[in-house]
Amino acid sequence: MAAVYLDNNATTRLDSRVRAAMLPWLGELHGNPSSIHSFGQHARDAVEMARTDVAALIGARAPEIVFTSSGTEANNGLLWDLARSFDYSGHLIVSSLEHPSVRVMAEHLVRLGMELSVVAPSSEGVVELESVEREMRSDTRVVCLMSASNELGTLQPIAEVATLCRDRGIWVHCDAVQSAGKVGIDVGRFGVDSLVIGSHKFHGPLGAAALWVREGADYEGGLIGGSQERRRRAGTENVAALVGFGEASRLAHLELDERFEHLTTLHDRFENGVADVPDVRIHCRESPRLPHTTHLAVLGLEGEALLIRLDLRGFAVSTGSACASGVVEPSPALVSMGMSPEEALSSLRISFGMTNTTAEVDDFLGVFEGEAAALRQVAPLLR
Amino acid sequence: MAAVYLDNNATTRLDSRVRAAMLPWLGELHGNPSSIHSFGQHARDAVEMARTDVAALIGARAPEIVFTSSGTEANNGLLWDLARSFDYSGHLIVSSLEHPSVRVMAEHLVRLGMELSVVAPSSEGVVELESVEREMRSDTRVVCLMSASNELGTLQPIAEVATLCRDRGIWVHCDAVQSAGKVGIDVGRFGVDSLVIGSHKFHGPLGAAALWVREGADYEGGLIGGSQERRRRAGTENVAALVGFGEASRLAHLELDERFEHLTTLHDRFENGVADVPDVRIHCRESPRLPHTTHLAVLGLEGEALLIRLDLRGFAVSTGSACASGVVEPSPALVSMGMSPEEALSSLRISFGMTNTTAEVDDFLGVFEGEAAALRQVAPLLR
Repeated sequence: MAAVYLDNNATTRLDSRVRAAMLPWLGELHGNPSSIHSFGQHARDAVEMARTDVAALIGARAPEIVFTSSGTEANNGLLWDLARSFDYSGHLIVSSLEHPSVRVMAEHLVRLGMELSVVAPSSEGVVELESVEREMRSDTRVVCLMSASNELGTLQPIAEVATLCRDRGIWVHCDAVQSAGKVGIDVGRFGVDSLVIGSHKFHGPLGAAALWVREGADYEGGLIGGSQERRRRAGTENVAALVGFGEASRLAHLELDERFEHLTTLHDRFENGVADVPDVRIHCRESPRLPHTTHLAVLGLEGEALLIRLDLRGFAVSTGSACASGVVEPSPALVSMGMSPEEALSSLRISFGMTNTTAEVDDFLGVFEGEAAALRQVAPLLR
Repeated sequence: MAAVYLDNNATTRLDSRVRAAMLPWLGELHGNPSSIHSFGQHARDAVEMARTDVAALIGARAPEIVFTSSGTEANNGLLWDLARSFDYSGHLIVSSLEHPSVRVMAEHLVRLGMELSVVAPSSEGVVELESVEREMRSDTRVVCLMSASNELGTLQPIAEVATLCRDRGIWVHCDAVQSAGKVGIDVGRFGVDSLVIGSHKFHGPLGAAALWVREGADYEGGLIGGSQERRRRAGTENVAALVGFGEASRLAHLELDERFEHLTTLHDRFENGVADVPDVRIHCRESPRLPHTTHLAVLGLEGEALLIRLDLRGFAVSTGSACASGVVEPSPALVSMGMSPEEALSSLRISFGMTNTTAEVDDFLGVFEGEAAALRQVAPLLR
């Protein structure tokens, strides 16, 4: 039996239609979009078509899109540039759920002179409006809130927070990497000032992401030394990856409803089944969530040990924990919402993609229950 | 007739063998190298194999290689990190030939508190040892010298400059993006502290480059927030591009001699032919140069106008000029070596690749002579 991939929040399988769009740019066609000649102009046209498709997915205008090589680069670059524009002074607020490319960068900005407040979510994995408002100061410059947690899948009240900030002239940055292609994203409806999406989380290629910056804002970019991306990001464009990103965006936009339905079907089927497994606790089940992410604890078991058993049986899932210098530590996001380190370490994240089927869910449920029981026999580590 | 690409310093056509190595990672295989499960570990293995091949091309050890998405990102990141380690104080020296990702970044560091000396090359396009030595001060921290000029193709005395710096405890950074895969690069023989190469300049894919940093050096990287690349560069690795970069490096290493010979054959054939075209001046012909780059002026003609005529006839070449806000300006590198703005603006760069043939050179010579003569009839602009 082929292995079943249930870790689509880490990365997804490339859509064969996206691959088909990319292939001509991997040999047959080539060119540096900055070149004046026809090879270059053809590449330029391909990149600009991709920009239009990516912009459409998030309700933006094409010139507002800055292509980067990854969500990390986009988040880093945006925060660098904001900090620079505020002369590394003033206050910023980030949620404790943020991806490390936001969270760790914010901590870095503290070393450069800014002040930082970190806002924890409720025990249901949602950052509350009041918690953000409570931290706001007269010198607050930036609020960073992701549109959905990459670990828990919980949707965040981004539009409400943006309204709060707009009234106070505070910049709102939204990391929407995990939401794009799964739920509708509209920069206008969100009301944010900047937003990031990444290609490889919704069946596009690795190596392509987009930073959207509100029109009129003075963004200078992260990488410097070339006039690419209207002088907002230096470096030769990765044409094949951007063409793939464009096609993945076009398809996701077109098929958003059916994707939502397919993912919801898998997700509900799995959660209804897994709820019957002894000592399983599905996290944030009552909160609004992405249609494809389940975060759960198998109480008393070590998540990583269960992950490895499942992997050996052909099912790939993720733990919420991060391995730092060989020591497995509980996820800071989970601990920040009041979860015990034991429960955090007994957690797994299951994230579905468009390549998964209901048959795979059923197979997985059987194996999951069996392996959890078997692990409990041999190693009830956390009891 | 298919168009002939003679702008291989801008980007190259992907080698079909490199493409074949990449294809499995564009759909069939997928995985985030940071994932614990087998999909992730398989991707990790692929990235590490690529690292070994890239390291071998430049005589380095694999753990010293930091993968980035582009040469610009690598050059930017290295200079950022060095400046940070020197607390944005002290003096740096860069050659006027440097790529904008070094040159403009160095100018940016001046705004942050560092002092900068720019060293011009001789009229033969080579930075002289004495010119570098003359600028050295007791507080000089860094010297940046590329191994070969991307415009002129002239090889630079990197090993000699490195010796000069080593005695004084000055960091030497070498941008070897245009040299890799065309001439031998050996970080030990060069004696530098850091070096950058990029995949797409020698028939590898776009989206992959490598920063080599001498073992033991304390490099913290440009992108932050993830533990990838031994905490030296955050962001999910672009597995397919890195696999392609590895294969392109392996092939270039293996075939270096025959590539050198093929490129030299094309290059010599072209230069011997073009030397007979009226008013053509081949630049730096007596200097040691890369085997595939010709930089020349067609005196009295506008380079860009000739480029466009050649493009319409199916031959893609480059000008040495950069278009800034609609005004064509002479290349700073050319002006710095004492070339008149008129001659700089009448220049073209022809750069051969492994896909070119002697028949293409012969066809090009005929068209080149004809178009230059025709342009002179209608628009002797600079006379």
